[in-house]
Amino acid sequence: MKHALIAALLGTSTLFASAPAFAQAKPEDVIKYRQGLYQVVGWQNRTMGSMVKGQAPFDAAEFSRAAEIVSLMAAVAPGAFAPGSDKGAPTRAKPEIWSDAAGFKKAMDTFQAESAKLAQIAKGAKDVDAVRSQYGALVKSCGACHDNFRTK
Amino acid sequence: MKHALIAALLGTSTLFASAPAFAQAKPEDVIKYRQGLYQVVGWQNRTMGSMVKGQAPFDAAEFSRAAEIVSLMAAVAPGAFAPGSDKGAPTRAKPEIWSDAAGFKKAMDTFQAESAKLAQIAKGAKDVDAVRSQYGALVKSCGACHDNFRTK
Repeated sequence: MKHALIAALLGTSTLFASAPAFAQAKPEDVIKYRQGLYQVVGWQNRTMGSMVKGQAPFDAAEFSRAAEIVSLMAAVAPGAFAPGSDKGAPTRAKPEIWSDAAGFKKAMDTFQAESAKLAQIAKGAKDVDAVRSQYGALVKSCGACHDNFRTK
Repeated sequence: MKHALIAALLGTSTLFASAPAFAQAKPEDVIKYRQGLYQVVGWQNRTMGSMVKGQAPFDAAEFSRAAEIVSLMAAVAPGAFAPGSDKGAPTRAKPEIWSDAAGFKKAMDTFQAESAKLAQIAKGAKDVDAVRSQYGALVKSCGACHDNFRTK
């Protein structure tokens, strides 16, 4: 098991030698990755949210790391909406993601910009008040995209 | 939908006002987060792996970002194995994760150390040869943990 995994990832496995390049990932694998990515975003958002809401004490390092993770997830998120990944597994992704590519790009750009800004602000934050407003801006960017591009 | 989400995350929703703090997340939610986190790790590892295997051209920025993501996922991964998350949803996590906490911590420490080292090396990498060996070390740390703490 271990050796098969290593061989596959290092490309020394004959079993996987003729597998298509990663760029041709199966739609269901893209969907699983996409849903995993947003699980991570949701969890890290709630980690920050619990501090903003005063349910957890403000931990500057933990908040900053959560913001950095969300920003990185936003940066790679477009790759999780590869063409063809509109079906292949149960998904709440709306067809508009691909049919209104310009509109989706705009929503994604906002997500990336707001999360990057929060990560930047969080780096030097001394208390929760320093991040509250930008955390709100990030959450709004999530909601705006869900409204238009995710089924209920 | 949008306003409910924002209200929930900002803590201004009466619906969620009496919800337990995030620290008391449900086991099934921890498991979903954990599986999502490893979906992200797997995808980013394959992104790096495709370059190491020569299936994709070496893109220094993309490789570095993937390594940074895996390192951050490793840093927060212990929180995805919260006590009580051994059941509640289908999971391949073995009971040994909690019964052999010291052994699991050692495997997790190795994952964190190897991924952090790869992220560091990747930052200044000019070609794929600069990251090949440490990428192999990271993959080995994945395999070692799967062997002992994940069912087949």
